[in-house]
Amino acid sequence: MDFTIQILGSGAAVPTLKRNPSAQFVDCLNRHILIDCAEGTQHLLRKNGVKIQKIQIILISHLHGDHYFGLVGLISTMHLLGRTSGLTIYGPKELEQIIRMQLEVGGHRMGFDIHFEVLDTKGKIQIFEDSKIKIHTFPLKHRIPTFGFLIEENSKGYNLNIPLLEEDKIPVVYYDKLKGGNDVVLDDDRLIRFKKYTTPPSATRSYAYCSDTKYDENLVSIIENVTVLYHEATFLNDMQSRAKATYHSTAREASLIAKKSKAKHLILGHFSARYHHADAHLTEARTEFDSVFSAEDGRIFSIKRDLDLKLLQE
Amino acid sequence: MDFTIQILGSGAAVPTLKRNPSAQFVDCLNRHILIDCAEGTQHLLRKNGVKIQKIQIILISHLHGDHYFGLVGLISTMHLLGRTSGLTIYGPKELEQIIRMQLEVGGHRMGFDIHFEVLDTKGKIQIFEDSKIKIHTFPLKHRIPTFGFLIEENSKGYNLNIPLLEEDKIPVVYYDKLKGGNDVVLDDDRLIRFKKYTTPPSATRSYAYCSDTKYDENLVSIIENVTVLYHEATFLNDMQSRAKATYHSTAREASLIAKKSKAKHLILGHFSARYHHADAHLTEARTEFDSVFSAEDGRIFSIKRDLDLKLLQE
Repeated sequence: MDFTIQILGSGAAVPTLKRNPSAQFVDCLNRHILIDCAEGTQHLLRKNGVKIQKIQIILISHLHGDHYFGLVGLISTMHLLGRTSGLTIYGPKELEQIIRMQLEVGGHRMGFDIHFEVLDTKGKIQIFEDSKIKIHTFPLKHRIPTFGFLIEENSKGYNLNIPLLEEDKIPVVYYDKLKGGNDVVLDDDRLIRFKKYTTPPSATRSYAYCSDTKYDENLVSIIENVTVLYHEATFLNDMQSRAKATYHSTAREASLIAKKSKAKHLILGHFSARYHHADAHLTEARTEFDSVFSAEDGRIFSIKRDLDLKLLQE
Repeated sequence: MDFTIQILGSGAAVPTLKRNPSAQFVDCLNRHILIDCAEGTQHLLRKNGVKIQKIQIILISHLHGDHYFGLVGLISTMHLLGRTSGLTIYGPKELEQIIRMQLEVGGHRMGFDIHFEVLDTKGKIQIFEDSKIKIHTFPLKHRIPTFGFLIEENSKGYNLNIPLLEEDKIPVVYYDKLKGGNDVVLDDDRLIRFKKYTTPPSATRSYAYCSDTKYDENLVSIIENVTVLYHEATFLNDMQSRAKATYHSTAREASLIAKKSKAKHLILGHFSARYHHADAHLTEARTEFDSVFSAEDGRIFSIKRDLDLKLLQE
């Protein structure tokens, strides 16, 4: 099953002709998640052929406009196009009032339920889990309350050696226990060691979204061993003092977080409009970390089963 | 001096790949006015090369999202790009709270003053006047409180016959009174009849914006003799019952308002996304009224001194 990240907006603060501000569409094992929703996100979803009604979960990192001003328009369009299935939105506490006020003033009787969950944590907490994936949130260090997200596929457990299980006539009913790493005792009193019949679990894929934030080493343990880290790199290192003052990061700082957290791959984004392209950000980050990509509007990344990161669409 | 109307968005309700929802940039004698501001308007202003900091006045017709969801983003970008000059926004009463709440939550200390004026009238009232132009608002008939706008250049008064005035040695100090259509008595007791020294005032140019509204003959006297009428034409006449039910108009109804109000030209817009182009709207409207244009994103219309309407940019 696929695990893809589609960059809808890769710029900071104001839209330019090349970059829209933050928004990403994540498909994790057919769970369809929108992370942040700058003004114009619904236009970009349409342009990129993403069916908006598929979106089940929206994660809003913080209430600077370049991360959520497109949310009310997206919701309104979902309604106007006949949506009936519910939508869950995770975001800072004022978000619900902002959205509901605008929907009420417009006089719409919404055709679907919107469920708001308030983000408000000082540590890493789980906010969503189902049979396939889970989502955690954690605080970032920005000028207003801001939250990062970690989306992971669930482990499928130990891999069963089916031919051997069949040869030894182990009933299928015990397979789940063995997958979970448990020894079992059969009705005929045979003790079955899971290690004999399984190989270790395959690696699980994960994606961490860290924008907007200043350099913060607290992130290292929170996202340790993440497969792909998206980390903001608003500035280059020659503007480190500006980054610090505005609670943003440089490309070098992003790469240090990737290195220290033992991420497999790093995607840089949230580039200031002063940069016409991300070449210098890539060069700077690669002095500390090998596998670095830049977020570019329209790009689709795919996290492969073997934890490689492929660019599916430029 | 120019009087131009730049169509930024010509569609209804939801953005499509061809049409953004409502927004127009009007330059009336160097007064820079934005009418409505759908999501994505700031993108389209940038794409069309309009400098956003020029905008002095914003008129918001009503609080359906396709007419104002881009306003907070535009204001935010004005701030981030260093605006210091004030901005006046005319709109329904809840608009101020909606905008201010979002700016406050974002933690911005705005670099310029925003002055909100509440629209709330049952008749035609003047909301703005300076030395060159005036703006009136008036109620439209829609599902929620909605207002139309009439932007007019001020009359320059009677045209002076300068050679004759000089020949008869009329002091320049009396020219303004004569332009205003007043007879004057000179210090030497000569009675000067204005009619002898002037010709009648040139025609003044005007633009009426009527969206969204059902067919409403009350508009006829309000916009009588307007030079250019923009009237919504969400539907074609075969969907008149749907237009009525949703408080919208058909192309034929728009043309009837243009004819009855003795407008010189009609621009149709706010087309439902079900129509791929406006050909049928134009055909339908032309059965009742001659000079009909369709609003298309990016088009610039110029109202000429002789009251002709020219398409400056397709």
